[in-house]
Amino acid sequence: MSDPRLAELSRRLPDLRLLTAPGDLEHYGRDWTRRWTPAPLAVALPAGVDEVQAIVRWANEQQVAIVPSGGRTGLSGGAVAANGELVLSLERMNRVLDFDAVDRTLTVQPGIVLQNVHEAARSHGLLYPVDFAARGSCSLGGNIATNAGGIRVIRYGNTREWIAGLKVVTGNGELLELNRGLIKNSSGYDFRQLMIGSEGTLGIMVEATLRLTDLPPPSQVMLLALPDMDALMQVFALFRARLTLQAFEFFTDRALEHVLVHGAQRAIDGDYPYYVVTEFDAADGAAQDAALAAFEHALEQGWVSDGVIAQSEAQAAALWRLREGITESLAPRRPYKNDVSVRISAVPAFLHEMQALLAREYPQVEVVWFGHIGDGNLHINVLRPDDLAEEAFIAQCEHVTKLLAATLQRHGGSISAEHGIGLVKRAYLESTRSEAEIALMRGVRRVFDPNGILNPGKLFEAD
Amino acid sequence: MSDPRLAELSRRLPDLRLLTAPGDLEHYGRDWTRRWTPAPLAVALPAGVDEVQAIVRWANEQQVAIVPSGGRTGLSGGAVAANGELVLSLERMNRVLDFDAVDRTLTVQPGIVLQNVHEAARSHGLLYPVDFAARGSCSLGGNIATNAGGIRVIRYGNTREWIAGLKVVTGNGELLELNRGLIKNSSGYDFRQLMIGSEGTLGIMVEATLRLTDLPPPSQVMLLALPDMDALMQVFALFRARLTLQAFEFFTDRALEHVLVHGAQRAIDGDYPYYVVTEFDAADGAAQDAALAAFEHALEQGWVSDGVIAQSEAQAAALWRLREGITESLAPRRPYKNDVSVRISAVPAFLHEMQALLAREYPQVEVVWFGHIGDGNLHINVLRPDDLAEEAFIAQCEHVTKLLAATLQRHGGSISAEHGIGLVKRAYLESTRSEAEIALMRGVRRVFDPNGILNPGKLFEAD
Repeated sequence: MSDPRLAELSRRLPDLRLLTAPGDLEHYGRDWTRRWTPAPLAVALPAGVDEVQAIVRWANEQQVAIVPSGGRTGLSGGAVAANGELVLSLERMNRVLDFDAVDRTLTVQPGIVLQNVHEAARSHGLLYPVDFAARGSCSLGGNIATNAGGIRVIRYGNTREWIAGLKVVTGNGELLELNRGLIKNSSGYDFRQLMIGSEGTLGIMVEATLRLTDLPPPSQVMLLALPDMDALMQVFALFRARLTLQAFEFFTDRALEHVLVHGAQRAIDGDYPYYVVTEFDAADGAAQDAALAAFEHALEQGWVSDGVIAQSEAQAAALWRLREGITESLAPRRPYKNDVSVRISAVPAFLHEMQALLAREYPQVEVVWFGHIGDGNLHINVLRPDDLAEEAFIAQCEHVTKLLAATLQRHGGSISAEHGIGLVKRAYLESTRSEAEIALMRGVRRVFDPNGILNPGKLFEAD
Repeated sequence: MSDPRLAELSRRLPDLRLLTAPGDLEHYGRDWTRRWTPAPLAVALPAGVDEVQAIVRWANEQQVAIVPSGGRTGLSGGAVAANGELVLSLERMNRVLDFDAVDRTLTVQPGIVLQNVHEAARSHGLLYPVDFAARGSCSLGGNIATNAGGIRVIRYGNTREWIAGLKVVTGNGELLELNRGLIKNSSGYDFRQLMIGSEGTLGIMVEATLRLTDLPPPSQVMLLALPDMDALMQVFALFRARLTLQAFEFFTDRALEHVLVHGAQRAIDGDYPYYVVTEFDAADGAAQDAALAAFEHALEQGWVSDGVIAQSEAQAAALWRLREGITESLAPRRPYKNDVSVRISAVPAFLHEMQALLAREYPQVEVVWFGHIGDGNLHINVLRPDDLAEEAFIAQCEHVTKLLAATLQRHGGSISAEHGIGLVKRAYLESTRSEAEIALMRGVRRVFDPNGILNPGKLFEAD
């Protein structure tokens, strides 16, 4: 604790858990991106709101930047600390504080892991519907900071729809209690909504009140093999019109290869270029018949080549693993990731342009893509060839990302659908947001964090 | 056009429709509140976005305040122009611009009347679900500016949930295209959400892209008579658990009296203190049986004294009229209105305190209340006794509103659930928003409108 700034922090908060060992700095200084060398000043693990406020006040006085930190499963570098920042980890603030059966809300601390939120909701016979593969390690605070989406957006929307109240410590150290669980509240600017998706640059979340909903009706899971890309939109339109979808996810043959190597079980024989995993309401025989009829219609039209319906929960889980295991199966290769979105209606044209672009720009490079077609969201994973150095690979990917950003701009899309901007995408922000918007964003940031201590350099260059 | 500022405006925009006749100034200078004497400088009716931007630039140079104006059905004075402002009416910008069947979105100009949005959606077999009694005259821009709620919030949420994209002209005259219809877009601060509910103080809406949804399943409408206030929450809990509610509205015997005088038909004989109109999914016999069983259970428990189920669409409309006709039946009396909300779980305790407060403070005054129990939202209408002068009456109401605001604050409630703050409630804003929040709101306003030309004096005192 030889740093005088840390000595001052310890003097003020003698009970604060503060880590400075090299292993801790490395562990807490990075997220699932592995591009930056962690170099935080220290790691603070506050036990409550008072400590968070005191840390923020200290940071303002000492001019130390703070990186708010949750499960560090982020894919845009939003939680990376590579420049002498204090990592403010919320992992000790991870409890369920309250459940209200009348309001159907769950109040939690931000460090709680998403899966624990799911389980707490289910223990009361209710559902917290935001869900995705990192559920076992991502924190709810991080979900809110990026407005996390995932695999159920087509039915339930993004994290934004499920936040009834937020307690936030601003860059000044002030505690705001935003919306306080109200359903209707038309009393000025909704800063709760402004905080959601702000990537830790406007405030540090210290408590959230989540709306819960009814458990979903019984469902069925189906895997479909498709002959070509155009069939994707046809099948989606058909299934959306005839069934009540809970999820509609797709992936390519290359993605499947990786998951199979990683231990998943093949569910359809033969090789097909595209696959869809879909889950839909199947409360009764009529709904199941409708699903079968939709499948048969797709087969007749040539939009689907083969398919399988899960006959048990175990089989449903095995089909889901084909889609959900992709990110994990690629992780050891540290892929360069694009996470883009367009309006659903723009997907076909964008997909064709994107495929042509990738084929032209990455001739020797393996590209694995998959995504949420019902949300217009594609995940593009570029794998580094063994004979290409990391630096040269990143440079090539950034060159292609620029071209991709320009394509997206023509189609009115976004350079970040659900991962956030962080460090990874800040150079491309102006393809999605206008110059005027970015100037306004900077202005708003100065209102909430006048000294720029909250996650500087994320979202946009530090100011 | 003797005012040199108006002469300059006409010189720049020779085709701009500009009204200065006294009748027009009065008509466009006021909303459904009738407390302020209209006194605008003039009324501009732009035909498109370019004219809106040019007007805003002119207003900055000439230091003229702008009051954005839609259907002027607001109940908080948000669209009142009583201080030489330019009324910028969007009523000529009232067209449907686009429908997209794949995205299921409708793109409209802000001056479109809500009912025309409903009809456009239905013509494509889809639903725009925000709905309330002023549907035939309120404008969609005004709905967005106040984050309008209404009678279907329990099922579909507020206006906020249905806005996929917004085009806005800021106080600088810059045009922002916010979110552009994307479902997933995690690329920085969501200014679309910030604009919703900002009451014309951050920008002027010039286009909105609305999400549509499936038409609701067939429904039934039921009127219930209740013996006392506590039964309200019991019946609500029962019906919410057993049925899929589309609406759950309540009103008092006094409210009923006014609607009956106004021409509605009595549907239940006898006098009861409280009534509920509820609408719920009734796609098949099973759902209808469940509704009947719930009703009978409530009857056995003594929570309900009598009830009637509509047997036809005409009868359903007649039952709805008992609830929806209230505001119109009171309008000639120009009631002083409170529009408050608490968490649903806080409703019983708040209702008891509120009733005691009203009985104590308004002993000689008729108070009519009704509301949306499933949203924790109560509308309190205070009627001026004939022998009390307007000014003294308002003073008394403002005194009571202060007490009510303090009660709300203790219960974590809001002084404005769905009407907005406007002129009427700005004095009570700090009972709902903290000093720190209000300071941040002022800061954000300066970012979007540095010269303070957009709707000054609304929401908070002009700065």
